[in-house]
Amino acid sequence: MTDTVVSSATREVVIGFERPFVVIGERINPTGRKLLAAEMAAGDYTRVTADALAQVAAGAHMLDVNAGIPLADEPRILAETVQLVQSLTDVPLSIDSSIVEALEAGLAVYRGKALVNSVTGEEERLEVVLPLVKKYGAAVVAISNDETGISEDPDVRFQVAKKIVERAEDFGIPRADVVVDPLVMPAGAMHGAGLQALRLIRRLREELKVNTTCGASNISFGLPNRHGLNAAFLSMAAGAGMTSAIMNPLHEPEMAGIMGANVMMGTDRNCMAWIARFREDARGGMAAGAAPAAGRRRGGRRARREGV
Amino acid sequence: MTDTVVSSATREVVIGFERPFVVIGERINPTGRKLLAAEMAAGDYTRVTADALAQVAAGAHMLDVNAGIPLADEPRILAETVQLVQSLTDVPLSIDSSIVEALEAGLAVYRGKALVNSVTGEEERLEVVLPLVKKYGAAVVAISNDETGISEDPDVRFQVAKKIVERAEDFGIPRADVVVDPLVMPAGAMHGAGLQALRLIRRLREELKVNTTCGASNISFGLPNRHGLNAAFLSMAAGAGMTSAIMNPLHEPEMAGIMGANVMMGTDRNCMAWIARFREDARGGMAAGAAPAAGRRRGGRRARREGV
Repeated sequence: MTDTVVSSATREVVIGFERPFVVIGERINPTGRKLLAAEMAAGDYTRVTADALAQVAAGAHMLDVNAGIPLADEPRILAETVQLVQSLTDVPLSIDSSIVEALEAGLAVYRGKALVNSVTGEEERLEVVLPLVKKYGAAVVAISNDETGISEDPDVRFQVAKKIVERAEDFGIPRADVVVDPLVMPAGAMHGAGLQALRLIRRLREELKVNTTCGASNISFGLPNRHGLNAAFLSMAAGAGMTSAIMNPLHEPEMAGIMGANVMMGTDRNCMAWIARFREDARGGMAAGAAPAAGRRRGGRRARREGV
Repeated sequence: MTDTVVSSATREVVIGFERPFVVIGERINPTGRKLLAAEMAAGDYTRVTADALAQVAAGAHMLDVNAGIPLADEPRILAETVQLVQSLTDVPLSIDSSIVEALEAGLAVYRGKALVNSVTGEEERLEVVLPLVKKYGAAVVAISNDETGISEDPDVRFQVAKKIVERAEDFGIPRADVVVDPLVMPAGAMHGAGLQALRLIRRLREELKVNTTCGASNISFGLPNRHGLNAAFLSMAAGAGMTSAIMNPLHEPEMAGIMGANVMMGTDRNCMAWIARFREDARGGMAAGAAPAAGRRRGGRRARREGV
């Protein structure tokens, strides 16, 4: 049982084996969002504010904050964004950058224990990011690629993850504070990507005993009905032991996939979260015929057997 | 690797460990459907015809046929229904009754190798149903309850399943022709029902090496958003090794849950079935923003790292 505890000034969130799946909202990220990038570069955080509030309202337990805008002053913008988002909501943040100065600027103003997103298995990254994680007492996302790129061999990806965990321990960062991203590949581009991801998640949990996260929507890249496929993947990944994902909490099928997995895994005690979210649909669901059909089939079979 | 081969006069369907999940359509069942019951009792099969065609069109690989109508001549009606459905479609049938005479009447007219639904671990049922299964060279659904009812202890349910498999072998029915129903309990009524079902499914596959099926919608009994919860369960059950389900193929979320699981498990080669079913949604899915978000996050992170 491994618990990764992250926090804001006033709230703790635990990513853990026996805990409800943690949803890390991915929306505050200007990469590929031109309008958001232009606004953030100009110091206009209207859209960041809206994205923060909407994601928390939709059920995000944490928010990822990224300020990667070409030619902009990323450290300053990331720090401002972190402070703004922390003034709007008490969910813990994932501070997301590949620029070490930006990570440090974000960590310096962060109140609580952040999740640093991310370090890879590349030597130069390990040497600069891990000391920072240690200095600020943060947790860190470990991405299972290294100088040679992303291996298609899941055993290699496991070994890279293991190396990062061990190096983190050398820096005094406990294994419980390393959340491994096994790197989910697109199922449409690579046969076996799904099964490979599921096996790797299980192995990371059982052998390396670490929590896991991923950018779940990668699995459906290039395929139709992405929400449906993401939802199936998230349910199955949670069933295989994945404990968090960086995703869009505004997507209903994906959230149902995760919350349904919590019901199945027994981490949604008495189905209270499921009922709270979906109870307004109850009448519709019954009217659609799903409810009677179920009771009927089993009930009917048993009832008739007694009559033989 | 266990393959359960069933067939109609002209088509084989294989329920198997390395095969796409088999959907057995549940709709041709008058239990709780008063109008259908009245029509079938009066020899009017209009609705049966519509249900058969709609389920196959929706993607059912097999159809369950039940004629359990109180006070009606079930053997005659079941035989007529089997013959009618076989004249309409070439998918193999599951012949569903708790009345042995009805099972025999259905089997006598059936063309191909049927799935008999079902036998339990009750002595009197084993003694009458298994000889019938053997006589007609059929496969059989084994429900893991016995004279003592349905145990809440999954170990007991495993033992009941094991007993049925062994008794079937005594009657000359190979283990590959026994498809075990582990009996899925409602998650809302019994804490741990989901995890218990998933573990039992895995154990039935790994230890008993049998194919499995279930009435999937039982899991969501009494809860809101049943389709969403059923879909999560089906994806996870397939991930745990379940190879078929008796269900309503007209329910889109459940079908996406299963077909998504096929993609993940690598049984939907090149995602061809997924693409064929959902390609008309492709534009909508992309427009909804799922596609760019995924590419962006990873692409962005990598791109920025190179720029450090």
